[in-house]
Amino acid sequence: MEIKTPDWVKHAIFYQIFPDRFAKGKHKPLPYNVPLEEWDLPPTLQGYKGGNLWGAIEKLDYLKDLGINAIYFTPIFQSASNHRYHTHDYYQVDPLLGGNEAFFELLEEAHQREIKVVLDGVFNHSSRGFFFFNDILENGPHSPWVDWFKIEGWPLSAYDGSQPANYGSWVGNRALPEFNHDNPEAREYIMQIGEYWIQQGVDGWRLDVPFEIKTKGFWQEFRTRIKAINPDAYIVGEVWTDSREWLDGTQFDGVMNYLFTGPTIAFSAGDRVMYDLVKSQDYEPYPALDAESYASKIQSLLDLYPWEIQLTQLNLLDSHDTARLISVVGDDRASVELSTLLLMTFPGAPSIYYGDEVGLLGRVDPDCRRVFPDKKDWNLDVLNYHKQLIALRHQYPALQTGKYRVLATEGQVYVFSRTLEQSEVIVAVNSGTESASVQVDGETLKTQPNQSVYGNPEMAWDSGTLQLKLSPRSGCILV
Amino acid sequence: MEIKTPDWVKHAIFYQIFPDRFAKGKHKPLPYNVPLEEWDLPPTLQGYKGGNLWGAIEKLDYLKDLGINAIYFTPIFQSASNHRYHTHDYYQVDPLLGGNEAFFELLEEAHQREIKVVLDGVFNHSSRGFFFFNDILENGPHSPWVDWFKIEGWPLSAYDGSQPANYGSWVGNRALPEFNHDNPEAREYIMQIGEYWIQQGVDGWRLDVPFEIKTKGFWQEFRTRIKAINPDAYIVGEVWTDSREWLDGTQFDGVMNYLFTGPTIAFSAGDRVMYDLVKSQDYEPYPALDAESYASKIQSLLDLYPWEIQLTQLNLLDSHDTARLISVVGDDRASVELSTLLLMTFPGAPSIYYGDEVGLLGRVDPDCRRVFPDKKDWNLDVLNYHKQLIALRHQYPALQTGKYRVLATEGQVYVFSRTLEQSEVIVAVNSGTESASVQVDGETLKTQPNQSVYGNPEMAWDSGTLQLKLSPRSGCILV
Repeated sequence: MEIKTPDWVKHAIFYQIFPDRFAKGKHKPLPYNVPLEEWDLPPTLQGYKGGNLWGAIEKLDYLKDLGINAIYFTPIFQSASNHRYHTHDYYQVDPLLGGNEAFFELLEEAHQREIKVVLDGVFNHSSRGFFFFNDILENGPHSPWVDWFKIEGWPLSAYDGSQPANYGSWVGNRALPEFNHDNPEAREYIMQIGEYWIQQGVDGWRLDVPFEIKTKGFWQEFRTRIKAINPDAYIVGEVWTDSREWLDGTQFDGVMNYLFTGPTIAFSAGDRVMYDLVKSQDYEPYPALDAESYASKIQSLLDLYPWEIQLTQLNLLDSHDTARLISVVGDDRASVELSTLLLMTFPGAPSIYYGDEVGLLGRVDPDCRRVFPDKKDWNLDVLNYHKQLIALRHQYPALQTGKYRVLATEGQVYVFSRTLEQSEVIVAVNSGTESASVQVDGETLKTQPNQSVYGNPEMAWDSGTLQLKLSPRSGCILV
Repeated sequence: MEIKTPDWVKHAIFYQIFPDRFAKGKHKPLPYNVPLEEWDLPPTLQGYKGGNLWGAIEKLDYLKDLGINAIYFTPIFQSASNHRYHTHDYYQVDPLLGGNEAFFELLEEAHQREIKVVLDGVFNHSSRGFFFFNDILENGPHSPWVDWFKIEGWPLSAYDGSQPANYGSWVGNRALPEFNHDNPEAREYIMQIGEYWIQQGVDGWRLDVPFEIKTKGFWQEFRTRIKAINPDAYIVGEVWTDSREWLDGTQFDGVMNYLFTGPTIAFSAGDRVMYDLVKSQDYEPYPALDAESYASKIQSLLDLYPWEIQLTQLNLLDSHDTARLISVVGDDRASVELSTLLLMTFPGAPSIYYGDEVGLLGRVDPDCRRVFPDKKDWNLDVLNYHKQLIALRHQYPALQTGKYRVLATEGQVYVFSRTLEQSEVIVAVNSGTESASVQVDGETLKTQPNQSVYGNPEMAWDSGTLQLKLSPRSGCILV
């Protein structure tokens, strides 16, 4: 079978938006004037800030200017939670976000700017208020929908924490009853949700905890039906670890590539990583890695999946599920910059978690979901290197789809090339605290990239060998 | 102020449908194949039979043939209860009913047949699963919607019956949290629901327990906004008793006229009424009434509200909230026929509770919500006099909007006239068990109706006096 993934993803730069925290619409007020948490105060686990899609529309020009051409929204459907993973209705955009009206306008405005829109599909579980589960809660065994969930006993104990939750729920959280995907009606219901939003023009699905669904053929059918509507729709699963099971070409186009995240941080930041902020997560930005160990991890990752899949992985440094990188590394700016350099030069679509590009801090949830800062609080250096790196990725197709080859590893110096036909780019990072010189054997290259478009290395080609000297904690891109 | 009510209602014959029990669509299957209660078994409080709007569409020709030109549906919106008074979403027709798609097709098909469609608006309370309440349940004081309901304490005890329900709920039923109508946002939300469905072409609202809403000006605003969209929209409140407070012309066009129901049954059925089936209800079909007492009650009722309102009252003999009349009277067919004769000749729109016209039995809830019977189980006599009486009401406009005047009361014989310009109709009922003769003074009449179009009385006009002899337990209509 020939594996086929969407071409546009290979050239995409994603921006991940947590809608409650990104932007409040200024020009179009919501129909409801309800009390909300103060925008500028630290976020809480349960409070709503009132960010909405009208606000996201107003920021599209900013994103376009940044170089973004795809947005991944964490859930936007009606949900009784600020993160909206507790879906109440899969066909309604949350009223606080502006409802379907705001979303359809956003979709149109984004597409006008050639920005794709990918939604978060939470199909393993719903919420307690979701109609079909709620009906079971109200009617017990009389409910027609009993077999849509994994009911174990009566009466359901959905809200009484002193009783065992007598139905299947995600990680035992009774707020999140799990669908019974083995039930053909429930399965069909979910398939139709997937189809509906793609028919409405959405460009893809990021799938929440898809590994929890064990029903045979479920994701294969999902892919078939989605691609039948739009062969270019992107399907990306939230799988943190070895994802070969899902990346065989019949299910997802990629996963959230935390296998890239961990080693990249461990190499760039070394022992600056604050263990407390990452220990509970399924990625491993520790222990510190030298260049050789990093190369080994990256090579393993590149060997894990077919190349067509590698090009449509969703690569990231942090997300709403992790502490922000800048906080993980104790506000060490170089660690973030070097990680970002590696992110923007890796195969697969880089994804920027909203606010990272202006230096927004954030420890673990809920702190990593702070509101997008006012302009006065932006770190312009961070913003500038983001813009620069994004622009370079767009400028050099080799950075998007070119072959990846490690050229040198020495101490903390890591050098690799991206090669696309005659176009070659060399990327080098010195994550050490000392200046470092390295000899790079150019024999695998057709050309001798000798212009630094990012960073200021000392460099010279000497009969097929590149002599490269990098300042401490710096990187470069040579073309 | 001149009171104005919709003209079409004055000429309407309503048919009340409880959608879960009326008809299953044969030609268009539902998207879900879920287990339901056996159609033919007695109904239960919580079970679903799976009647749906596709089925109702297939029955429109039957209704048209019966003479029906308006339908009042008990609630159809997404709800976790078979009666659907526990609204989960005011903008979605219940998926088991066929969803919005089925409803919009029904609306079009009904309108093509010149049948109006009135929906049941449950605006005093929602259900526990309703999004805005559910958000409070999930997020407690953090919810933006806290003030939309009447929260009294935390944490909410919505499902734990061992705790006091610490929020306002209808008749103390915690499944039905009451809106805080004093909150302008909640109020606006409800107003917009009302407007939305009228904009979609619905012909009116039957308002559930509207007397529970004490917020000043609420129903006045509702009327103003509904009538601004469609001046002919019908607004009828569920108020069982003296409704002058709401029938001043600024709120409802009429109420469910149980003040007609009680005396009419008490006169027609006398001591056949089974007390156990009616004692818990707010209408009084007991004690037995003689003609004079009935006349007195009817006269009081007619004196209670303006005439323009009388003409758009919703008159009924039973409903989903009462036992069916035929069961109330211990299956005494004459009681039902005489009551129906009085119903069809009274000012205001008669409303037939689905199945009454074919003799469907039903004690109190859930028994009064049996499925509409198969043709083989129809009582064709009952159906025939329904058709005949409906046809007569349509044929003689005096029965619709003519003045009502009691002409004679004697023992169990009750005689009245309906007069519209030159057209006069006399109606007489002998609810006694003996033949009875009565002299009717015709001096208030311009004509001498002498043709019996219903029933077979002996009759003769003798210099301005009608000599009328009625068989036991019979009635007649003279034109």
